Amino acid sequence: MKKLIIAAIITGMAVGANAQMVTSESIQQAEFTPENEAKTPIDYRKWIFIGSPLTPNALNDGAAAFPEFHNVYVEPSAYEHFAKTGQWAEGTQIAKELALIYQNDNDELGATYEVSGHGYQQGEFNGLELLVKDNARFPEMPGGWAFFSFGHHAPPYAKTSAAFPADSCNACHADNAETDFVFTQFYPVLRSLQK
Amino acid sequence: MKKLIIAAIITGMAVGANAQMVTSESIQQAEFTPENEAKTPIDYRKWIFIGSPLTPNALNDGAAAFPEFHNVYVEPSAYEHFAKTGQWAEGTQIAKELALIYQNDNDELGATYEVSGHGYQQGEFNGLELLVKDNARFPEMPGGWAFFSFGHHAPPYAKTSAAFPADSCNACHADNAETDFVFTQFYPVLRSLQK
Repeated sequence: MKKLIIAAIITGMAVGANAQMVTSESIQQAEFTPENEAKTPIDYRKWIFIGSPLTPNALNDGAAAFPEFHNVYVEPSAYEHFAKTGQWAEGTQIAKELALIYQNDNDELGATYEVSGHGYQQGEFNGLELLVKDNARFPEMPGGWAFFSFGHHAPPYAKTSAAFPADSCNACHADNAETDFVFTQFYPVLRSLQK
Repeated sequence: MKKLIIAAIITGMAVGANAQMVTSESIQQAEFTPENEAKTPIDYRKWIFIGSPLTPNALNDGAAAFPEFHNVYVEPSAYEHFAKTGQWAEGTQIAKELALIYQNDNDELGATYEVSGHGYQQGEFNGLELLVKDNARFPEMPGGWAFFSFGHHAPPYAKTSAAFPADSCNACHADNAETDFVFTQFYPVLRSLQK
């Protein structure tokens, strides 16, 4: 009987949590293996681009946490939901493809001199990551956000990926990202939707 | 009679040039005013992102030719044509939206220290440009590419724009861009289609 009551309380909590989820049947869902590994997204380069942060190794003592350009994309149906509501729906997918800084006799800043000036251009692709908000599938992840990497190297990327442990990514995103684990402060495309 | 012969030669040359054009009825065309000014593209942020060159003022004696992040997008039907053929079809539209470097007590490199490291993030939008390949409409432009600016400032942008004179942009693109006036060397998304 005691177990039943506890189960009822837990179920009640879960229902309560679910009630606060932003749900939409129209959100394109990521695909997963039976082991809950995410499958590599298809056509993510046709998703909605939102920004490209750049923290070169040369500006970070040779060891930047994220040395490449990050091309960040939101899956279109999740983007439309965010545009309408300002919230990330359950099922939201955000892809991040890494592009090395263009290599052409890079200088002490890791930059090159091109016809357009001294600075940074995108070279070769070097990795693919995916962020999925899915509280039902990943109840242990803060905010329901699960982070995946399909390889930190040139394509082809891995076909599946297990989620990073919650403490690898979520804590920093929770503490520093402005809008539900997403760094909207660095994504003018998203900020323009919030105005 | 002499005039007629010259006209015939010119017409013949034009027909010859037309024969080499890459045409496709399926390419989404830009809109123009009766005065041949381009109208501001709609939904260009949903086009296919191809790259984001960055040449900060701080790295260019305070006066970069292009000091902002350039978010460059190809209109989807033109992108599909390029993916299939490796060529830019007549009617191809490429948009370039400028985003100021994120302002947060920027240092001598114009960069900031954020939780992800020392570098560059996208701040506020600061301009919109459009590149259209249309030999029929702009026969005087090398490669048929016409360049437009809808303002070098924060949105809202201008609703129409006259083309820049041919010598403002085309010469540099003709001399330095790898693929028919487009800098594919800096756009890994496009290079991946050429492999």
